[in-house]
Amino acid sequence: MEIEELIYFIVEMMGTVAFATSGAMVAINKRVDIFGVLVLSSITALGGGCIRDILIGTLPPRMFSDYRYVTLAVAVALFVFLVAYIFRNHYQKSQKIVDSVNNVFDAVGLGIFTVTGVQVAIESGFKMNGILAVCLGVITGIGGGILRDVMLREIPFVLKKRIYALASIAGGIVYYNMFLANMDRTLSIVVAVAVTFVIRLLATIFKLDLPRVKLKEPQQDK
Amino acid sequence: MEIEELIYFIVEMMGTVAFATSGAMVAINKRVDIFGVLVLSSITALGGGCIRDILIGTLPPRMFSDYRYVTLAVAVALFVFLVAYIFRNHYQKSQKIVDSVNNVFDAVGLGIFTVTGVQVAIESGFKMNGILAVCLGVITGIGGGILRDVMLREIPFVLKKRIYALASIAGGIVYYNMFLANMDRTLSIVVAVAVTFVIRLLATIFKLDLPRVKLKEPQQDK
Amino acid sequence: MEIEELIYFIVEMMGTVAFATSGAMVAINKRVDIFGVLVLSSITALGGGCIRDILIGTLPPRMFSDYRYVTLAVAVALFVFLVAYIFRNHYQKSQKIVDSVNNVFDAVGLGIFTVTGVQVAIESGFKMNGILAVCLGVITGIGGGILRDVMLREIPFVLKKRIYALASIAGGIVYYNMFLANMDRTLSIVVAVAVTFVIRLLATIFKLDLPRVKLKEPQQDK
Repeated sequence: MEIEELIYFIVEMMGTVAFATSGAMVAINKRVDIFGVLVLSSITALGGGCIRDILIGTLPPRMFSDYRYVTLAVAVALFVFLVAYIFRNHYQKSQKIVDSVNNVFDAVGLGIFTVTGVQVAIESGFKMNGILAVCLGVITGIGGGILRDVMLREIPFVLKKRIYALASIAGGIVYYNMFLANMDRTLSIVVAVAVTFVIRLLATIFKLDLPRVKLKEPQQDK
Repeated sequence: MEIEELIYFIVEMMGTVAFATSGAMVAINKRVDIFGVLVLSSITALGGGCIRDILIGTLPPRMFSDYRYVTLAVAVALFVFLVAYIFRNHYQKSQKIVDSVNNVFDAVGLGIFTVTGVQVAIESGFKMNGILAVCLGVITGIGGGILRDVMLREIPFVLKKRIYALASIAGGIVYYNMFLANMDRTLSIVVAVAVTFVIRLLATIFKLDLPRVKLKEPQQDK
Repeated sequence: MEIEELIYFIVEMMGTVAFATSGAMVAINKRVDIFGVLVLSSITALGGGCIRDILIGTLPPRMFSDYRYVTLAVAVALFVFLVAYIFRNHYQKSQKIVDSVNNVFDAVGLGIFTVTGVQVAIESGFKMNGILAVCLGVITGIGGGILRDVMLREIPFVLKKRIYALASIAGGIVYYNMFLANMDRTLSIVVAVAVTFVIRLLATIFKLDLPRVKLKEPQQDK
């Protein structure tokens, strides 16, 4: 059991690093100041888990009762900010590389937090309720990014582009069923994260979007 | 008692259908993809109740501990999306009808959720505190729409137009006082919902707005 | 002990008045209607404390279990609205004075809520965890303003300008350490609020901003 907890802790730390990196990059692109970068990066990394824990009534949220999550997220954000600040000419010229790194980290974070979200939901009494367990996993995976985008005055990316959410839903369903089937925990994590990661990246590369109702009038804003 | 619970359940389901429909229509108008429509529609329908339950400490929120609410909201949103998608030419041409349907459903949802919100607040220990009970009713009624509008990068409609909130406050006060006066529950629900509904629709038809401070400088955004 | 509670209550009431005033002024400038002014003003005043109480699991939030906070915030907002409405020509001409008053009240509110936030965190089991205690203080101080700005479709001021957050962090650290050092409570409050207030106002007067990564491409929005 202890080893299992350790595995989840390490996986969650990896997710925190991934989302904090991606969140910091998005914030830097929007020209917020260093504090804004730290806050938005932390919110991207910890926000989804906080919403999940609030919804299931685990208060204070786990990411808030253990100072290591906040500290790690802030440290990562500070590192990304300093790199971007010191090498800003290179940072700017390599916008395509930055975007790719951002996408990869974001996909890793999405996969990891979806999986840990489903796991926490299962442990919190949603074991026999697949719909809500997967729902909570998806909220954990996409919640932080939504909070960040709302604070940056963007319509959340996840609502508009690249089957982002579908990747999270798929990973959540895979993990939930591998859990019910009592399969090896580490294997389940790896497979479910991989499913999310691959769908998310394929969607980005091939620019896949979900269908929408194409109305003809000019769109109101911009 | 069981019949009473059943009545509230049915009323709440009706409110969920009304708000999910209206939320889906607003989302479709903003050109988000199918997943965005499902999410925004669910948030419109369940968001207010979630905020209320978080505030009163009923966790997980009722709308999240019973999978039927989520399922119903998603099903309704899917249905509206498919209708709009398949008949998009008609959907577009009949924008005025769509807007009217949207307004009616939104008014019904507002009335219902205000009432159930006050009821839940009363049951949760706010019985002798009318101000906060009505407050929680209004939050239940308008919270989902505010979350939706914020995610769609709109200044929440409720803050700007058509005495929307006043309708909710009026309905909440009526229900709270009919409850204190120990009047028939079903009658109280019907009367309070009707009050909200009528005020809301009259305000839309006659374009009634609340007063605001008219400053002369050009407004900053749009 | 009772005197201590009374002191915190009075201080918190002062913070509520300060933030409600400043919130109402911001809302009036954005041309929302009277209800919008009341809501946004209340959210500015009570929002930070609500987020903090949700995160530490004190539900209903203190600002919601005691009707005096809501009542006071609404009364202040109504007063500001009426003054601005009746004297709108003067209000408009004296925009600079209004902005100054707004800044002073906002700085007072920021200092007070940071301090009470740290205090509540300490009482709620974060006594030995300075990072999270200060974190919760800052959330209490800046949370209401962030909610208000998000609802008004602004990128939160705190993320962009005038070392706003740094002032709150500094005040929080001062208060936390004076508490640990067991210094006189009233003195601790006064010193910590003063630290926040002075940093915040100096930053406004001298237009101090935190560093950001200056990318050369034209900014996307606006």
